[in-house]
Amino acid sequence: MAVVSVQQALAGGIAAGSEVTVRGWVRTRRDSAGLAFVNVSDGSCFDPIQVVATESLANFDNEVKKLSAGCSVIATGTLAASQGKGQKFEIQATSVEVVGWVEDPLTYPMQPKQHTLEYLREFAHLRPRTNLFGAVTRIRHCLAQAIHRFFHEDGFYWVNTPIISTSDAEGAGQMFRISTLDMMNLPRDAKGQVDFSKDFFGKEAFLTVSGQLNVEAFCLALSKVYTFGPTFRAENSNTTRHLAEFWMIEPEIAFADLNDDANLAEKFLKYVFQAVLNERMDDLAFLAERVDKTAITKLETFIAAPFERIDYTDAVSLLQKSGHKFDFPVEWGLDLQTEHERWLTEVHVGRPVVVMNYPEQIKSFYMRLNNDGKTVAAMDVLAPGIGEIIGGSQREERIDVLDARIAQFGLDPEHYTWYRDFRRYGTVPHAGFGLGFERLVVYVCGLSNIRDAIPYPRAPGLATF
Amino acid sequence: MAVVSVQQALAGGIAAGSEVTVRGWVRTRRDSAGLAFVNVSDGSCFDPIQVVATESLANFDNEVKKLSAGCSVIATGTLAASQGKGQKFEIQATSVEVVGWVEDPLTYPMQPKQHTLEYLREFAHLRPRTNLFGAVTRIRHCLAQAIHRFFHEDGFYWVNTPIISTSDAEGAGQMFRISTLDMMNLPRDAKGQVDFSKDFFGKEAFLTVSGQLNVEAFCLALSKVYTFGPTFRAENSNTTRHLAEFWMIEPEIAFADLNDDANLAEKFLKYVFQAVLNERMDDLAFLAERVDKTAITKLETFIAAPFERIDYTDAVSLLQKSGHKFDFPVEWGLDLQTEHERWLTEVHVGRPVVVMNYPEQIKSFYMRLNNDGKTVAAMDVLAPGIGEIIGGSQREERIDVLDARIAQFGLDPEHYTWYRDFRRYGTVPHAGFGLGFERLVVYVCGLSNIRDAIPYPRAPGLATF
Repeated sequence: MAVVSVQQALAGGIAAGSEVTVRGWVRTRRDSAGLAFVNVSDGSCFDPIQVVATESLANFDNEVKKLSAGCSVIATGTLAASQGKGQKFEIQATSVEVVGWVEDPLTYPMQPKQHTLEYLREFAHLRPRTNLFGAVTRIRHCLAQAIHRFFHEDGFYWVNTPIISTSDAEGAGQMFRISTLDMMNLPRDAKGQVDFSKDFFGKEAFLTVSGQLNVEAFCLALSKVYTFGPTFRAENSNTTRHLAEFWMIEPEIAFADLNDDANLAEKFLKYVFQAVLNERMDDLAFLAERVDKTAITKLETFIAAPFERIDYTDAVSLLQKSGHKFDFPVEWGLDLQTEHERWLTEVHVGRPVVVMNYPEQIKSFYMRLNNDGKTVAAMDVLAPGIGEIIGGSQREERIDVLDARIAQFGLDPEHYTWYRDFRRYGTVPHAGFGLGFERLVVYVCGLSNIRDAIPYPRAPGLATF
Repeated sequence: MAVVSVQQALAGGIAAGSEVTVRGWVRTRRDSAGLAFVNVSDGSCFDPIQVVATESLANFDNEVKKLSAGCSVIATGTLAASQGKGQKFEIQATSVEVVGWVEDPLTYPMQPKQHTLEYLREFAHLRPRTNLFGAVTRIRHCLAQAIHRFFHEDGFYWVNTPIISTSDAEGAGQMFRISTLDMMNLPRDAKGQVDFSKDFFGKEAFLTVSGQLNVEAFCLALSKVYTFGPTFRAENSNTTRHLAEFWMIEPEIAFADLNDDANLAEKFLKYVFQAVLNERMDDLAFLAERVDKTAITKLETFIAAPFERIDYTDAVSLLQKSGHKFDFPVEWGLDLQTEHERWLTEVHVGRPVVVMNYPEQIKSFYMRLNNDGKTVAAMDVLAPGIGEIIGGSQREERIDVLDARIAQFGLDPEHYTWYRDFRRYGTVPHAGFGLGFERLVVYVCGLSNIRDAIPYPRAPGLATF
C-alpha cells in the first residue's frame, strides 16, 4: 500500500489495480444504493479523486454516510479506471478512515457552492480549500518557480535586498515607519522632535518600496542579478489594484541599454507564461470556465506575438490621431493613463507593446537622460487586458549627470552617497525593470481584484490574520 | 564575435580559437615586456579570465597600462588555451575598451588585498566585488535555488505568508512596530493610550517573526506547503549570531507526525548541500583555502551520514554521564545550550543528530502534547560545527488541547481565533520545521559572523544602505 498524492493517482503513472492510499479533504459526497461516492482533494492538483465506498465497509453507515465537505479522510483501495465522466481513475475503497470531522456541517464556511470573493476574503485561512483559491495558489507557485528558474538558467544571481530601509528609494514617500520606541513615552531631542537616534537602528527606518538601488550595487559586481521579495506602499487607497504589501521582481543587467532591457522583459514574460501553460493546464481550464474565458488563449497569444516597440513621442501622436475619446488628456509631457495604454496594446497593435523614452520630468531621477536632454531611457511594457505590466529603465551611470538629477529632483544627496559611490569605480551602462508579482498573478488568473492574488491580503482594513 | 560570460569562456564549451568578447571589472594587472596581463571578473563564476594585451593595441600605453582594480572593460579577442598556471583559457585581445575608470585608484576601497570583514561590512555596496563576497553571493543563490527546487520536485507549493502582522505568532515579543501615524501628533483614545484604530490597518501592526501559523492554514488545504521569506526580530543583541532581518524557510506537511518531519529535514538538508557541491565547487575551493578548511569535506560527510535520532530525555542522560564539564547546567526540564548540542553531535555521535520530544514547558504552545503529558513532539536538528540548524514540531491539531495550551501560556485567545478555527473543520495531524536561511549560509561558507551571510545586514547600528 503506497501513500500517493491525488495528482499522482490521477496522472496515469500508477497502474490500474494497484493498492493506494490517498489523504485529503472531502469536497462532496453522493450516495447511491449501498454506495457512496466521496470526492477527496488534497490540493496537489485541481481535480479531486472519486473514492467509491460500499456498504461492506464496517464504518459505512456510521461514518462514511455522514461525511460532509471539509472532513479529512485517509482512503485506501484499488486504483481503477473510472466509469464516471471527466475522471480517468477512481479508488475502490477497502478502508475510509475519518481523521477529522467538521464541527457543524451546516455552518462550515466553505460550503460546496460558489461564494462571493468578498465573502472569501474574510476567510483567508479557509479559502485555499476552494477550487478558485487552490488554483490561484498553484499558479502563483508555478509562476514563482518559473521566475527563479528563468533567471537561474540565464546566469542571474538572486540578491535579497533589505526590507528595512533608512532611505526612500524612489523619493516618493508613502512609506511605513518601523520603530521599537515606546509610543507612550517617545524620546525627544533638543528641538522637541522625536529622537530617532534612540531607536533600534539609531535613525528613522521604513519598509522598503523597492530593492532596485541596492541591487544595482550587486549588478556592478556580478553583472546579472535579480531581486524577488516583498515591498510596501502605505498608499491609503482602497482600490482593486493596490496592496500595502506585495512582492516585486527586479532584474538588473550590466553592460546593457534600454533595448537589452526590453529584450529581457519579453523573454522573461514569455518564459513564465509558457511555464504556466506547460504545468497548470488543469487550473487554467477551470479559470477559463469560471473566471476569464481567455485564460488560456490570452497566454498562448502573448507567447506567439513579438512585442511591438513604440517611442513615447510616437505613442502620443498615435493617441492624438486615434479619434478615440479618452477621459484623460493626451499631450507630450503627460504620463500615459491605463486607458491610453490599453488602446495602444489592444486596439492599435493587438499585442504587447513596449513604450520607450519618456519625458524626463515624469520619470525617476535614476533613469538615464537621453541625448535629446528631454527624455529618459525608460520603458513600460503594456499587455492587452491589463495595461502596464512592467516598468524599467536604463540607469544613469554618469556620476555628474546623476548628481545634477538628484539636485533637480530636490532630493537629499546625503541619502544617495553610497548609490553614487559605486559609480565612482568602474561605472558601466546598466538597466533593469520591476514588476509586481501579484499583478502577474492577476493577469494570468484573470482576477479583477489584486487582493485575491496574494494568500493573505494587506490593505487598509485587511490585515486581520 | 560573441559576448560570453567569463564562466562560459572558462568552462570549455567554446572552442579555442573562437573570437569572443567578455565584459567585467579588472581584478589585477601585471606587465611584462610589451604585454599586459589583465584579470577580468564579471562575477559569473569565481575565477577571472586573463586577458593578454599586447603593445600593438592602439590604447596600450594610454589606457591598458593604466588599468587598475575596479575599472570596467570590454575585451575582445581570441579564446586560447592558456600557458599560465591555474587557468585553462585566456583571451588574446584584439581590443580592450575601457568603459569606466576608478576615480582615484589609491583610495579605491576594494584594493586587491585581504580586507578585514569589519572593514568590508562598512562597504556592503562594494564588497560583492571581493572574492569572498562574490563566493558567498553565488553560494547563497545556489542554496536558494536548491531550496525552491527541492520543494517543487517534492510536490510542495510556495506560500508567501504576511510580513505585516497584527498578531504575535510565537507570543514571544520583541517585534518591530509598523505605523503611519504622525509621531509628533499621536491620536489618543479616551484612556489616553495611543489610538491605533486611526493607524493604517485600524489596529496595532508589527513585522512578522514567523510565517508558520499562517502557512498551517494552507497546509490543511494543499497538504504540502512551504514559506521562504523574510522575518524580523527586534532583539537588541549585538552578536555574531543574530540579525534583525533574516530569511526563513518553513515547510509544513499534513497527515504527518514528528518522524515524518525529521525525515523531511534530513532529505532537505542533504539535497541542498549536494546542490552546492554539484554547482559551486569553485567557490567552495576558495572558502576551503581561506575561510574554513572543512568547507568541502564538511558537506560531503554531512550527506554521507544518516542522521542519529535521540530522545531529549536520553540526551540529558548522555550529557550528564559524559564526564564533560559544561558551563551551563544539564538537567531534565532545561533547554539544551549550544555547548550541549555540539557535544552531542560532534563528540558523542560524530554526525547530525535529531533531538526529539522536549519538555513541554520550554517549548511553544502550538507543539503537540505527547501522551506522557510532560513532553511535546518537538525536534531540533543539530549539526557538527554549528549546533542547532533546524527546529520543528508536530503541531497540536486537537482543538481542546490547543485551547488549554493557549490558556496555560497566558496568551490572548482573541489573537488565535482564526488559528484554532481551521482545526474545527477536518483537522489532521501536521508537522513542520523552520530554519534561518542565513544560518545555512553561515554553515556552508564557514563564516563566523552572520552579518556576512546577507547582502545588506540589518542589526543594531547596521542599516545604513
